[in-house]
Amino acid sequence: ARTGDPEVVFGSGKTPEQVVEILRTLHAAHPDTAVLATRLSPEALDHVAAELADADVDRVARTAVLGALPAPRGLVRVVAAGTSDGPVAAEAAVTIRVHGAGVERVDDVGVAGIHRLMAVADRLADADCLVVVAGMEGALPSVVAGLVGVPLVGVPTSVGYGTGAGGLAAVLSMLNSCAPGVVVVNVDNGYGAGVHAARVARAAAPREAGPVVTGRGEASP
Amino acid sequence: ARTGDPEVVFGSGKTPEQVVEILRTLHAAHPDTAVLATRLSPEALDHVAAELADADVDRVARTAVLGALPAPRGLVRVVAAGTSDGPVAAEAAVTIRVHGAGVERVDDVGVAGIHRLMAVADRLADADCLVVVAGMEGALPSVVAGLVGVPLVGVPTSVGYGTGAGGLAAVLSMLNSCAPGVVVVNVDNGYGAGVHAARVARAAAPREAGPVVTGRGEASP
Amino acid sequence: ARTGDPEVVFGSGKTPEQVVEILRTLHAAHPDTAVLATRLSPEALDHVAAELADADVDRVARTAVLGALPAPRGLVRVVAAGTSDGPVAAEAAVTIRVHGAGVERVDDVGVAGIHRLMAVADRLADADCLVVVAGMEGALPSVVAGLVGVPLVGVPTSVGYGTGAGGLAAVLSMLNSCAPGVVVVNVDNGYGAGVHAARVARAAAPREAGPVVTGRGEASP
Amino acid sequence: ARTGDPEVVFGSGKTPEQVVEILRTLHAAHPDTAVLATRLSPEALDHVAAELADADVDRVARTAVLGALPAPRGLVRVVAAGTSDGPVAAEAAVTIRVHGAGVERVDDVGVAGIHRLMAVADRLADADCLVVVAGMEGALPSVVAGLVGVPLVGVPTSVGYGTGAGGLAAVLSMLNSCAPGVVVVNVDNGYGAGVHAARVARAAAPREAGPVVTGRGEASP
Amino acid sequence: ARTGDPEVVFGSGKTPEQVVEILRTLHAAHPDTAVLATRLSPEALDHVAAELADADVDRVARTAVLGALPAPRGLVRVVAAGTSDGPVAAEAAVTIRVHGAGVERVDDVGVAGIHRLMAVADRLADADCLVVVAGMEGALPSVVAGLVGVPLVGVPTSVGYGTGAGGLAAVLSMLNSCAPGVVVVNVDNGYGAGVHAARVARAAAPREAGPVVTGRGEASP
Amino acid sequence: ARTGDPEVVFGSGKTPEQVVEILRTLHAAHPDTAVLATRLSPEALDHVAAELADADVDRVARTAVLGALPAPRGLVRVVAAGTSDGPVAAEAAVTIRVHGAGVERVDDVGVAGIHRLMAVADRLADADCLVVVAGMEGALPSVVAGLVGVPLVGVPTSVGYGTGAGGLAAVLSMLNSCAPGVVVVNVDNGYGAGVHAARVARAAAPREAGPVVTGRGEASP
Amino acid sequence: ARTGDPEVVFGSGKTPEQVVEILRTLHAAHPDTAVLATRLSPEALDHVAAELADADVDRVARTAVLGALPAPRGLVRVVAAGTSDGPVAAEAAVTIRVHGAGVERVDDVGVAGIHRLMAVADRLADADCLVVVAGMEGALPSVVAGLVGVPLVGVPTSVGYGTGAGGLAAVLSMLNSCAPGVVVVNVDNGYGAGVHAARVARAAAPREAGPVVTGRGEASP
Amino acid sequence: ARTGDPEVVFGSGKTPEQVVEILRTLHAAHPDTAVLATRLSPEALDHVAAELADADVDRVARTAVLGALPAPRGLVRVVAAGTSDGPVAAEAAVTIRVHGAGVERVDDVGVAGIHRLMAVADRLADADCLVVVAGMEGALPSVVAGLVGVPLVGVPTSVGYGTGAGGLAAVLSMLNSCAPGVVVVNVDNGYGAGVHAARVARAAAPREAGPVVTGRGEASP
Ligand SMILES: Nc1ncnc2c1ncn2[C@@H]1O[C@H](COP(=O)(O)O)[C@@H](O)[C@H]1O
Ligand SMILES: Nc1ncnc2c1ncn2[C@@H]1O[C@H](COP(=O)(O)O)[C@@H](O)[C@H]1O
Ligand SMILES: Nc1ncnc2c1ncn2[C@@H]1O[C@H](COP(=O)(O)O)[C@@H](O)[C@H]1O
Ligand SMILES: Nc1ncnc2c1ncn2[C@@H]1O[C@H](COP(=O)(O)O)[C@@H](O)[C@H]1O
Ligand SMILES: [Mg+2]
Ligand SMILES: [Mg+2]
Ligand SMILES: [Mg+2]
Ligand SMILES: [Mg+2]
Ligand SMILES: [Mg+2]
Ligand SMILES: [Mg+2]
Ligand SMILES: [Mg+2]
Ligand SMILES: [Mg+2]
Repeated sequence: ARTGDPEVVFGSGKTPEQVVEILRTLHAAHPDTAVLATRLSPEALDHVAAELADADVDRVARTAVLGALPAPRGLVRVVAAGTSDGPVAAEAAVTIRVHGAGVERVDDVGVAGIHRLMAVADRLADADCLVVVAGMEGALPSVVAGLVGVPLVGVPTSVGYGTGAGGLAAVLSMLNSCAPGVVVVNVDNGYGAGVHAARVARAAAPREAGPVVTGRGEASP
Repeated sequence: ARTGDPEVVFGSGKTPEQVVEILRTLHAAHPDTAVLATRLSPEALDHVAAELADADVDRVARTAVLGALPAPRGLVRVVAAGTSDGPVAAEAAVTIRVHGAGVERVDDVGVAGIHRLMAVADRLADADCLVVVAGMEGALPSVVAGLVGVPLVGVPTSVGYGTGAGGLAAVLSMLNSCAPGVVVVNVDNGYGAGVHAARVARAAAPREAGPVVTGRGEASP
Repeated sequence: ARTGDPEVVFGSGKTPEQVVEILRTLHAAHPDTAVLATRLSPEALDHVAAELADADVDRVARTAVLGALPAPRGLVRVVAAGTSDGPVAAEAAVTIRVHGAGVERVDDVGVAGIHRLMAVADRLADADCLVVVAGMEGALPSVVAGLVGVPLVGVPTSVGYGTGAGGLAAVLSMLNSCAPGVVVVNVDNGYGAGVHAARVARAAAPREAGPVVTGRGEASP
Repeated sequence: ARTGDPEVVFGSGKTPEQVVEILRTLHAAHPDTAVLATRLSPEALDHVAAELADADVDRVARTAVLGALPAPRGLVRVVAAGTSDGPVAAEAAVTIRVHGAGVERVDDVGVAGIHRLMAVADRLADADCLVVVAGMEGALPSVVAGLVGVPLVGVPTSVGYGTGAGGLAAVLSMLNSCAPGVVVVNVDNGYGAGVHAARVARAAAPREAGPVVTGRGEASP
Repeated sequence: ARTGDPEVVFGSGKTPEQVVEILRTLHAAHPDTAVLATRLSPEALDHVAAELADADVDRVARTAVLGALPAPRGLVRVVAAGTSDGPVAAEAAVTIRVHGAGVERVDDVGVAGIHRLMAVADRLADADCLVVVAGMEGALPSVVAGLVGVPLVGVPTSVGYGTGAGGLAAVLSMLNSCAPGVVVVNVDNGYGAGVHAARVARAAAPREAGPVVTGRGEASP
Repeated sequence: ARTGDPEVVFGSGKTPEQVVEILRTLHAAHPDTAVLATRLSPEALDHVAAELADADVDRVARTAVLGALPAPRGLVRVVAAGTSDGPVAAEAAVTIRVHGAGVERVDDVGVAGIHRLMAVADRLADADCLVVVAGMEGALPSVVAGLVGVPLVGVPTSVGYGTGAGGLAAVLSMLNSCAPGVVVVNVDNGYGAGVHAARVARAAAPREAGPVVTGRGEASP
Repeated sequence: ARTGDPEVVFGSGKTPEQVVEILRTLHAAHPDTAVLATRLSPEALDHVAAELADADVDRVARTAVLGALPAPRGLVRVVAAGTSDGPVAAEAAVTIRVHGAGVERVDDVGVAGIHRLMAVADRLADADCLVVVAGMEGALPSVVAGLVGVPLVGVPTSVGYGTGAGGLAAVLSMLNSCAPGVVVVNVDNGYGAGVHAARVARAAAPREAGPVVTGRGEASP
Repeated sequence: ARTGDPEVVFGSGKTPEQVVEILRTLHAAHPDTAVLATRLSPEALDHVAAELADADVDRVARTAVLGALPAPRGLVRVVAAGTSDGPVAAEAAVTIRVHGAGVERVDDVGVAGIHRLMAVADRLADADCLVVVAGMEGALPSVVAGLVGVPLVGVPTSVGYGTGAGGLAAVLSMLNSCAPGVVVVNVDNGYGAGVHAARVARAAAPREAGPVVTGRGEASP
């Protein structure tokens, strides 16, 4: 795209056939960079896996990547409160890698168990950017932003029910954080958070990123 | 009242003269218990102070108490995130004492400075009930409820602006807490939280309460 | 958990296999206390019943309990307005027992038939804590809190339609109760109300609880 | 008007001079029926009192009436929860008399003190229509409609704060009443409720109405 | 019921078997009056038709009636804007008959074709009460209430989409009617409107009602 | 402006001095076309009247116009429901003239008095565009659009209270109109409606416009 | 219809059989003008195609047209932001043709790729009316209205998720456009926008319209 | 603070005396870094100017700075749509300088005049981070993010009226941007955007920042 970003297909509302065709066309036009598809239905994930042998399909993130990933510059850590927030964290992680930064996942550090979070504070401080994913009351970005001065993007998720259905409580929480410098994206928009975070991390001093994770949390060296 | 609670005057929308007259009438009818007035305007506070020499007027809590306080049974700690939350915390504290429990304030422990909160965790665990007051994103009750298993009432405050104006973000946050057992009252309703907390504390083992605070946080022995 | 509470699995969004596996693992780690799973799908309830012979499955409450229940201390009465509120009342009741208090159900006492409610007023006054469950306009907690001075938690339910769909009318009603001391949890959150109520009841004088009910309202001696 | 109703001036947003002039003009055109002005500012009330000696000005209801009241047919009882709901109840009462029905006030019977309400149940049953005014959680119409089968109009008021500010909780409560047959008007719309109730009462069997009240609650024989 | 109304079953959320059983039990207890069930699913309608030969099942209104209808006193006309509003109008009509008043339907007179409405103005004026059903912008009650001075209940329906989804535009429109005396029920609540209207009509002069319609609009002599 | 429209100053939040200065500057730059200022405070209106002798100040519309009006092409009729809607109708009327179309006002034809509206139906049909202004339930555009097939812009106003405060009921009503072809602008945005209507009228066959009104309704030949 | 518009069937909630029958009846009554059906389900589209050989069925627009299209007068260009907005743009295009104006589609010019939009600015300026369709943040009408002075109708679509679900962000965006003269219809209401735009275009100078498109964007000469 | 950020006083709700005292105390404790106060009332700005001769008071931004500014590293450009958005842009600009980055303002480039925006596209691309401030429909961040690939923070402002009052339309617009990588802060939160942007810019390659602006837009070398 004109902005220098890789091409991305928003899979929601597209047929499996459309997704495969667009990925193929974009990859042919940009053979040297990765092309990303997000929000893929189970059927689209299957169809991509069957049709595009080279595609890297992530069923949790609901993404597919076609083409070689760029070398990572800078490091983003993606922090998630609970297991239900996993798919959104995974979408962010894949997006970050496709957009040229390194990524590491830090899972299961919700505010209701603050000691687990404190135990990883040093790792959080040692990143170029943080993406912090949380549903329910969405308090995690506030607590993390009170601990470390790293650029931080909050991602509210739609995990919740009753007055919190659809992520309303979480997005309001993050927009009203009493901790300085929390910025926010739309509910479940791991993609948007990942694009921003990757830009921030790449522009930071181009140190060597650590081992990189693209999916559910297993390190990929 | 039929429920065994002391009489309470809701000052909002009443003239200074009405407040004084109702307090006088209720005190005459119930000479042995304290009578409480809340939500008093500055003018009403002045008028009560001038007309009722025995009344205990709290300008931060916007309350007046007439008649002897009951001996405290059990202990409630009122925890507040920021200084702007002070008036609501103070209303809760006065209400608790009038309703027969002991009270102590723990101020300035917002989630953006989590270390100050961790430093008082032991004091929080050692109470019969907690009232946790917070505005903005209202995350404090979640963090406290993840630290200690004491009955806990969250009080959202109207401190906030933009999408958080009127306390909406805070009340949604508390209702959607991912920590177990957080119960909530209306925005700025320190009175309601205080009534519940005092009942809970009084019913707990009737140990001797510590030094008791009724206002801004100075201990009253 | 660090707070002293039993382990609880939030079943929503987990597969039947995951639920069974987590219950098994937690029970192995905590053989002496009960482990609770809530919000189970019909399939998960079936799978738990088939795989874990010792589990106590409640199809109305949508819960499963593995491990011995603690001896009950104190008594919570769970009051429900209508039959549609039954599953939420049942979730609260199971939670209360698992968290160590005794429980009794008082059903079908909605505000539209106030005489039935008046007839049980004495039983309501004689509890250590009340959980009051209501949908539609959610008026029941206000009326009960005007009758008795017992600590009371209101649980709005999503029973309703039109402008009341999702429980909005009920949760606003309870937050704005004109009766003193009503505290509230999220819509349909019988679990959260139960955790709070059990803590309150256990801390009250440790009298002998009456016959205890865990499910739909049949007494279990 | 074409509908057979008396002429009514909605005073909100009109100058004192405009109100006086319109009342004078309408009275000249309709010398035999009463003309009503509602929602008058203090200045407009003063100006009407000074300029129109024959006008009946009610400072609580914020109304003025010019011209002879019609003989009352049928009886409406206006029931109010708290003293803050008084102005809305008064607006309803004046409207009812101007529209040709008799009226009686029943004050201070909020749901938090259910015994006071039960004590007047017989008087409520013995009316041709009820107007039930309540703010906060607006539960009163539900309870009254469960007691008596008389046509009943609920009037939510803007009395409340936090999540109840502006009367939202009350109007939702009344629209979602679990008691059959509750109909509702806009927040603070005592006038609209009065028009409907007077029509209903007039059409009922034309018995002799009891002593009639037009203002704050003093009987006017 | 205590209020003198017939017994009514709210079918939503009940199984076909439960509906049949409750209808049978209530009919046995009240053999001389009609028993009504509303909001029945297609399956419940089938089951009632199969099991209760004497029941009068209305598939548009989604109702079933068991037992003899009372003789009609007074007349309610049920006015509907469009064909999509038909089921709600039908629910109101059946409810009115079961509650002892006569009923007539006036269909297809939406505000976008004002001449059709003007053509029936005389019939509207000649009723003891009007129930006016409309979705989309819900303007019909305002126009009708400007034409005739008869007591009028507005019923917003959930017919609509986009910003009007769920009936929000219609219910707000009716609550804010600029025509005097419009009272309102919850979205789609034909039942509630019918109960109120029947009470109003019965209390009016007990003239002989015209031919009565209970279902889709065919006259039943 | 690039779009060919005259220059317009949005007065809200500007000082009287700023308004006068901008009007002067724009008039100097565009001596041959009119320059418009809207949303002027009383102080700004005074200051413009005192400083710019040639300006045409309209205190109801809260506007000022500097420079010669263009000759009118086509005719817009501005229809208003009630007197409170007058200022918004006036803002629309002035805007229309400044943007080159002719304008005529049709006032006081709210839906609650449908006969007055029917009486002017022919005049409504004989316009190139209609601007229909209404507050409260905002039903007027639906009724007018059912009468005539002329392009029609609805303008909701903030006239209303309770659930209609701020114009929410009116704007939802107009967006959900059941009459075909109603388009809508923001609450109180007479300016926006006027710009659109003038464009539509000017493009229509360039017949000679009738006598033209710029303010409260007096014809200006 | 009385307004001179063709007959239109709103297919939502109607069975395939009903749709076919109404189309047939209307066509018989109006053999010389086209009859339109919108919001057809896939089943209704199939049934119309099978039963009415002469009908023109558009599966993207979800419409069917029976009868000869009128000769086009004037030209409307329908501008769409993204491919997901296609069905709404198609509904608008079909409606415009049926209502007697010419139409052309301009697709895939969302604000995130502003250069594509700039490249077609001249074509936009050369239309009698514009219909601008956009979902997500709905910014496209603002940008277009800043480029050209043509009458412009914004159509928000329900394309979006999280805080934008249902089209709320888009409709608010368009109502609050900072560009002058943007008018708006309900979310997804391509039909309403088309009716208005066709009226505007027809009334403009009756030049010869260009090649006309009725469906997905292929020109139909 | 623990995060390495300078100390900041949130002036809202504090007295002028409190603000001066806190600034003095913090400056004494941190003599080598700047201390910032935001959201100051006119009285507080006066009091700071009078009492703290060394403070740098900005009446548009409503800020005061005490202590030497850090040398700027990296460059943030603050882009604003209209003049009403000026105070929020100014708050962001001051915050950025205090937090150690360089800043430049780009004003008056709203989306309704897209050519002005295109003219500065190169300057936008040549920044380390962008802060984009807009009210009304808040479309500016979407357009900018479609032009350049720089990290970008959107700041919705409360500039607007009717359905846009309070900034709701703007914040929803930005959260739902169809352009990749837009992150958002609370309405009017220039401070929060500034903290994030400064962190991002400082971490980018430490090139020499251009001439720096701290207030209304005049360059300060
Ligand atoms: N998960 C996502 N959430 C929001 N926007 C996305 C997402 N994935 C892709 N996009 C955006 O959608 C654009 C592609 O849309 P489309 O052309 O419909 O496939 C991309 O350029 C991104 O800006
Ligand atoms: N701050 C408060 N917030 C909410 N309710 C209150 C408050 N203070 C008093 N009340 C309630 O108001 C009742 C008295 O109302 P009133 O008779 O109007 O003075 C008391 O019995 C309390 O239930
Ligand atoms: N009453 C109004 N409502 C909405 N927008 C307006 C109004 N009056 C003027 N505007 C817009 O505000 C712009 C001028 O804004 P400004 O430069 O702040 O004076 C004009 O070009 C119009 O687009
Ligand atoms: N897509 C649409 N959106 C909104 N209204 C529509 C639509 N299609 C048709 N209508 C309206 O629905 C009316 C027909 O409704 P019906 O009689 O229920 O078929 C038409 O006269 C139009 O005013
Ligand atoms: Mg969380
Ligand atoms: Mg907080
Ligand atoms: Mg209930
Ligand atoms: Mg009440
Ligand atoms: Mg309608
Ligand atoms: Mg109106
Ligand atoms: Mg868009
Ligand atoms: Mg803008």
